[in-house]
Amino acid sequence: MRYAAILYFCGMAKGQDKFKQVISHAKEYGYIFSSSEIYDGLSAVYDYGQNGVELKNNIKNYWWKSMVQMHEEIVGLDAAILMHPKTWTASGHVNAFNDPLIDNKDSKKRYRADVLVEDYVEKLEQKAQKEITKAKKRFGDKFDEAEFVSTHPRVVKYRQQSQEILQRLGQSLNDDNLADVKALIEELDIACPMSGSRNWTDVKQFNLMFGTKLGASAESASDLYLRPETAQGIFVNFANVQKTGRMKIPFGIAQIGKAFRNEIVARQFIFRQREFEQMEMQYFVKPGDELKWFEHWKEIRTKWHNSLGLGDDNYRFHDHEKLAHYANAATDIEFKFPFGFKELEGIHSRTDFDLKAHENLSGKKLQFYDPEMKESYVPYVIETSIGLDRMFLAVFSSALQDEDLGDGNSRTVLKLPAILAPVKAAVLPLLKRDGLPEIARKIVDELKWDFNIDYDEKDAVGRRYRRQDAAGTPFCITVDHDTKEDGSVTIRHRDSMKQERVKIEELSSIIAKSVDFKTWLGQS
Amino acid sequence: MRYAAILYFCGMAKGQDKFKQVISHAKEYGYIFSSSEIYDGLSAVYDYGQNGVELKNNIKNYWWKSMVQMHEEIVGLDAAILMHPKTWTASGHVNAFNDPLIDNKDSKKRYRADVLVEDYVEKLEQKAQKEITKAKKRFGDKFDEAEFVSTHPRVVKYRQQSQEILQRLGQSLNDDNLADVKALIEELDIACPMSGSRNWTDVKQFNLMFGTKLGASAESASDLYLRPETAQGIFVNFANVQKTGRMKIPFGIAQIGKAFRNEIVARQFIFRQREFEQMEMQYFVKPGDELKWFEHWKEIRTKWHNSLGLGDDNYRFHDHEKLAHYANAATDIEFKFPFGFKELEGIHSRTDFDLKAHENLSGKKLQFYDPEMKESYVPYVIETSIGLDRMFLAVFSSALQDEDLGDGNSRTVLKLPAILAPVKAAVLPLLKRDGLPEIARKIVDELKWDFNIDYDEKDAVGRRYRRQDAAGTPFCITVDHDTKEDGSVTIRHRDSMKQERVKIEELSSIIAKSVDFKTWLGQS
Repeated sequence: MRYAAILYFCGMAKGQDKFKQVISHAKEYGYIFSSSEIYDGLSAVYDYGQNGVELKNNIKNYWWKSMVQMHEEIVGLDAAILMHPKTWTASGHVNAFNDPLIDNKDSKKRYRADVLVEDYVEKLEQKAQKEITKAKKRFGDKFDEAEFVSTHPRVVKYRQQSQEILQRLGQSLNDDNLADVKALIEELDIACPMSGSRNWTDVKQFNLMFGTKLGASAESASDLYLRPETAQGIFVNFANVQKTGRMKIPFGIAQIGKAFRNEIVARQFIFRQREFEQMEMQYFVKPGDELKWFEHWKEIRTKWHNSLGLGDDNYRFHDHEKLAHYANAATDIEFKFPFGFKELEGIHSRTDFDLKAHENLSGKKLQFYDPEMKESYVPYVIETSIGLDRMFLAVFSSALQDEDLGDGNSRTVLKLPAILAPVKAAVLPLLKRDGLPEIARKIVDELKWDFNIDYDEKDAVGRRYRRQDAAGTPFCITVDHDTKEDGSVTIRHRDSMKQERVKIEELSSIIAKSVDFKTWLGQS
Repeated sequence: MRYAAILYFCGMAKGQDKFKQVISHAKEYGYIFSSSEIYDGLSAVYDYGQNGVELKNNIKNYWWKSMVQMHEEIVGLDAAILMHPKTWTASGHVNAFNDPLIDNKDSKKRYRADVLVEDYVEKLEQKAQKEITKAKKRFGDKFDEAEFVSTHPRVVKYRQQSQEILQRLGQSLNDDNLADVKALIEELDIACPMSGSRNWTDVKQFNLMFGTKLGASAESASDLYLRPETAQGIFVNFANVQKTGRMKIPFGIAQIGKAFRNEIVARQFIFRQREFEQMEMQYFVKPGDELKWFEHWKEIRTKWHNSLGLGDDNYRFHDHEKLAHYANAATDIEFKFPFGFKELEGIHSRTDFDLKAHENLSGKKLQFYDPEMKESYVPYVIETSIGLDRMFLAVFSSALQDEDLGDGNSRTVLKLPAILAPVKAAVLPLLKRDGLPEIARKIVDELKWDFNIDYDEKDAVGRRYRRQDAAGTPFCITVDHDTKEDGSVTIRHRDSMKQERVKIEELSSIIAKSVDFKTWLGQS
């Protein structure tokens, strides 16, 4: 993780431009707005606009159908965000879900101690980059970057220093040696970015859960938390679902829902939000079988990602060496975001940690009676957990492309998988007269029963094409004077920009074919 | 509202049994569980089980398609639960979203003052009911209830007293005369239900919003609220959606999402939860046109409800006489729940109250430039707001029926509209051998691409039919020995219990027809 940071900084300059384009395009085309923007926004919280909500719902739906509808042994669940507080004692979140924070005594500002150090390292890397850029300019074609970075004394020094700092930080955090984290900040002479002061408090652990109170009475109110993960809603309902659904091991429970984390630093757009959404499936298996199922789910989830065609090069796997206290195997599916490879989905073998912890604290049995073995056991759990907002960002950022059209023109196009696109087709009358709008509206009225359809009559048709390209609409259907004669229209394909002449009656099946679930999921 | 309470109490005895059946059936068939049940539940918060989540999603989808997909001028939105706190200052929630509470000084228990008084009235009504039941028994067929209640001295006294108390309570609350509410409690000699003590504090207003803190620093943390309604997420995004979506007045923004209210008393299952979900649409119109659009949306929403066929007698309209401070017209669509007629959906003409309040506080323009009038104005708003959990309860409770089959047998059947049913069909091999399970599984594998399908091979087929009836599955498909010969199966219809012999190839279109969106919505 710590070393990944260096790679990350190297790719940043190019990624930064792309990242900025993603953020501004997402706003301009109604995908993502800052929350409460008229009040200058709420940090690290975002709203999904008219196109964003459709893309988000389509991703949810694609996941849900592929997990729940396609698997006889997987059922859904929708647990509440508010849960009994003991849930978070059992799960370990009350005691151990912390970030190391430090306050500046003069500015009264609070920071994540590890982020202060990482920012320092980032500055070292920026210095190294400056040297590289300078040398590149000077030597032109003859510049050998690998040679340069391994020999240039200042670059070598910056990088070595970075590596040592990150190593020590990682070690101190792993050992929970917060005094050494503070010592490191002092040794590096890190100042408060707001005030320049070096007057720091000790580093302390702070819990990341949002707290609230149930009941209006100060005395009788109970402390609640907004759930920091959706998984526990599945675990506490294990017995209810197993019994009323008559489920037999192995079986899974899938859930999509919001979770909340009171992040101190959250600055990667929708990648790390204080309010976010997860799509999780917990698969209950016989103890001893868990690693077989772990491999099974890695394979199924990989196929799911591949089916959407976001580019195989954009994915990589990261097997965890250091495992969380509850896991005996874990893999991240990482995606190449504009700011580098980062976790998109996690597949974890969680053992019986959670169910046992809830058994112990609640005194209720969370077991499965195996009719063949004639005994009860606490099942082991394989979890697949994907960030919905991260999947949104993966789909959106990989789809956003600037295309050189070869004729001196270029276009910005959002090549979303058709099955996920917010609007499936836009119907455009060539002119705003001669009865063309009426025919176009009739086509909309027919198609809208089955698909999300736009009608657009403003501006020249070429401009409307570009607008729909940028919004991600797979098809444009143009109604012209010939349509009145022979009932044919032009259908234009977003990605190839090819145009065909087809009958109005064919439109529905052309669109249906392009968004057919079986075709999409089946192709992986 | 206050008088409605009396009617409500009268219908309660019969409704209570049905209500209990609804709650236990919802648990038994995996529709609704108490939240965190293994920790004895979290009061007034519920989890949706494996069937519940499907029914809930199908209701959402039916609403979303009918509002967003079918209306060219309506688009969606998905705003975050956490919003900038100024939002709730502008909306009036910080100052005026209160309940009148009273504490008992001995037991330290807190109550809603109005509910204490209403509980007292309920007891009077129970006494009246006792007299009526007694007289009914005594007089048998000759009993004239209307005559009895208007002449029997004790019944007349109880009811008159109830009416007077509720009238005074309503008046005091309207006048914000909390001292008189306390006086009423003392005059009626109401004791703390926990301790029997009459040692009360003054009545005070308490805010119903759940509070939380952003950022881990005590000093820099800002006070946030969990949104108590979804509407404000639409209002603060008005300009973003209007501009990026190039919307022209009239247009609407639709949203489905969670909201939270820290109710002190919440005891009607999923009808009044602390965490609940709303489906809202705000329709922006030209000032002066609002009452025309108000009527328009009443009509459209009525048709939507009618299209689901829950029984026209189960609906009634309640026009508000006393309007909220922001409204100039308001209607409730009420539904006959097991505990009586209660609000299911509200249609409100909200004027420009919200947009103006946000303009004033944020300093940002929330206006529409009308190209025909060549001037800008703050639009007026018509809101349609339906409780998703309430709609769930309406669908579920009206669908749950005990049917006398005439042959000495009866069945419990959940007659959900097929388009909303969690599982569309169950495929049942008649026997667990002779290759029948394999054929059944092949049918499942084909149908599951398009529909949520169950496979069930346990118990005698008659018992499986009953189980699917109770779970709400519209079709059972039985595979028997003839299937091997001629590729035909038996399809059984849940509501009529009629069985037909059809070819396997016909199944997909039979199910598709029964859940066709155009057929359902179009029939209203």
